[in-house]
Amino acid sequence: MSGDDTILLAHGGGGQLTAELIEGVILPALGDAGGQEPACLADAAVLDPGAWCGGAAARLAMTTDTYVVQPLEFPGGDIGTLAVCGTVNDLAVAGATPRAMSMGLVLEEGLEISLLRRVLESAGRVAVEAGVRVVTGDTKVVERGALNGVMINTAAVGEVSPRADLGFGRIGAGDAVVLSGPLGEHGLAVMCRRKGLGLAGHLASDCAAIHGLTADLIEALGSDVHFMRDPTRGGLAATLVEIAAATGRDIQVRQQAIPVAPAALAAAEMLGLDLLTIANEGKLVAVVSAEAAENAVAILARHAIARRAVVIGQAGATADVPIVEMLTAAGGRRVVQMPYGEDLPRIC
Amino acid sequence: MSGDDTILLAHGGGGQLTAELIEGVILPALGDAGGQEPACLADAAVLDPGAWCGGAAARLAMTTDTYVVQPLEFPGGDIGTLAVCGTVNDLAVAGATPRAMSMGLVLEEGLEISLLRRVLESAGRVAVEAGVRVVTGDTKVVERGALNGVMINTAAVGEVSPRADLGFGRIGAGDAVVLSGPLGEHGLAVMCRRKGLGLAGHLASDCAAIHGLTADLIEALGSDVHFMRDPTRGGLAATLVEIAAATGRDIQVRQQAIPVAPAALAAAEMLGLDLLTIANEGKLVAVVSAEAAENAVAILARHAIARRAVVIGQAGATADVPIVEMLTAAGGRRVVQMPYGEDLPRIC
Repeated sequence: MSGDDTILLAHGGGGQLTAELIEGVILPALGDAGGQEPACLADAAVLDPGAWCGGAAARLAMTTDTYVVQPLEFPGGDIGTLAVCGTVNDLAVAGATPRAMSMGLVLEEGLEISLLRRVLESAGRVAVEAGVRVVTGDTKVVERGALNGVMINTAAVGEVSPRADLGFGRIGAGDAVVLSGPLGEHGLAVMCRRKGLGLAGHLASDCAAIHGLTADLIEALGSDVHFMRDPTRGGLAATLVEIAAATGRDIQVRQQAIPVAPAALAAAEMLGLDLLTIANEGKLVAVVSAEAAENAVAILARHAIARRAVVIGQAGATADVPIVEMLTAAGGRRVVQMPYGEDLPRIC
Repeated sequence: MSGDDTILLAHGGGGQLTAELIEGVILPALGDAGGQEPACLADAAVLDPGAWCGGAAARLAMTTDTYVVQPLEFPGGDIGTLAVCGTVNDLAVAGATPRAMSMGLVLEEGLEISLLRRVLESAGRVAVEAGVRVVTGDTKVVERGALNGVMINTAAVGEVSPRADLGFGRIGAGDAVVLSGPLGEHGLAVMCRRKGLGLAGHLASDCAAIHGLTADLIEALGSDVHFMRDPTRGGLAATLVEIAAATGRDIQVRQQAIPVAPAALAAAEMLGLDLLTIANEGKLVAVVSAEAAENAVAILARHAIARRAVVIGQAGATADVPIVEMLTAAGGRRVVQMPYGEDLPRIC
């Protein structure tokens, strides 16, 4: 297939053209992340968890996400990058090492195969970096106009570290809330590109896989890590409010502590958006014991994607109506609220 | 939420409305198939395979499929039935008992929530019957016009029976090809409904989960079952050609042995389609040793969905250019070919 080709409805029929698409485009683009033989993407894959964990039955984590980002390619990444990072990150914050991933592609008739190849190459690259194999997949084609180009669903299974003991219930008063880096660059880069705003030139998605951050934290700090989450849709605000609601504890954060990238702040102000509610991909919120906080920051900061890791606040006492309170830069107090909806969907 | 409500873009934003949709609609509709607490659909789920298999690390199977069927509801089923049956069946033919399923929903702005509730209730019902839990999920909303109502991706993990020893490589000369029932009713019921053809009145999808069939076969016959597949897209033709290509063996089938439902045959003839190439969901092709063939048919026929199970042919010798040959009812011979594409996609 040449780069000029486009997707035909018949590519989704399950016949010869489907096989050609899988063997000629999808598997080569996924590269080392794909299966060893074409058949592996056509069927259920058999996994051998015994080989991961030396015979004992480990706890496994399972997650899924469908990626509908528009535009499909944006500064700093594309839908393929996102589809692997997002699912790897959902496993990572569950304390799991990603092991096997499924990939469901839905393609629009007329999609340029060269574009498909680029996004799958991105997906394959991130999967290799994250050490996860794409073991099974599915490809559907829908009529022109029934979709905007391509949607990707990824689901994945990971092995939960025996050292991980995570959950809302483990969060206690005085626990430190650690954030791995500045907010909003991913969501804003996508929005600006979609809106055709020039400031996108200064702003690129920092979409990344955070399995390295979470693995190092769990390895070094074990049960001193109480909870982890990656603040995606709804941003840091949604994550903090969810923690407050689930634990019944107030959460205090200091606005001045929250790292911000100047280009993201400028874009958010121009768009009238709150950086706290903008989607990220590749950021980590970890709640750790107060004693472990400094160590957690140091461990994270060894990674290039978390050089600006910092303690942004702490969990407080239980309350009948727990709130997330932000000490503002001006010295005031503001209640951080769960975003109601979202003005611009499809940034993840 | 009342039945009159429709999906808003903000239902996909990750904030309060998303939580209301998950807790107010999705989890209640999934019923016993869903998680025990709302949080379970928001995150990675932790699985404990040790509890399935008594401590030893079993082999696991993993599969995924995205369902884009149009119309969303059709005689005999809907996209929810299909999304669970299809993924359960992909595990079943790998010799696996389905254990945990993820569900990724993509909803179109304006979708009636009552419709969403119906399809999720169907999904929940089939999942309970199949003994699989929906352990994690994801919900995205796209703008009106960017999708036809709803797409569902399901991925699932199952435990492979220690008695299963399946693969193309296990198929030998003289092995019997067993088919569990008549072809094409699912695909034709969907096509007729989509085209508004009146003959749909006599035709309903026989979409079903076949985990019971495959489990009984493996339990009773063990390694005498050499290969299993459910003939979906591309129909029986694609499955047989794939077996011939992968094994390098000719396959012979007898047209008169292939069970046919009169309504399906009439519809296929009216539409100018070949029953052998039409998609099914809930049919099983099993390749078993010649000695086990009679027993296999008897075991299948105990199930209501496989009362017409029958040996339709056998694997032959290896050949440089292996073919699937059909002895026609008229006494002639016809080469069964891999369908090239498909005239009407979105029937699965």
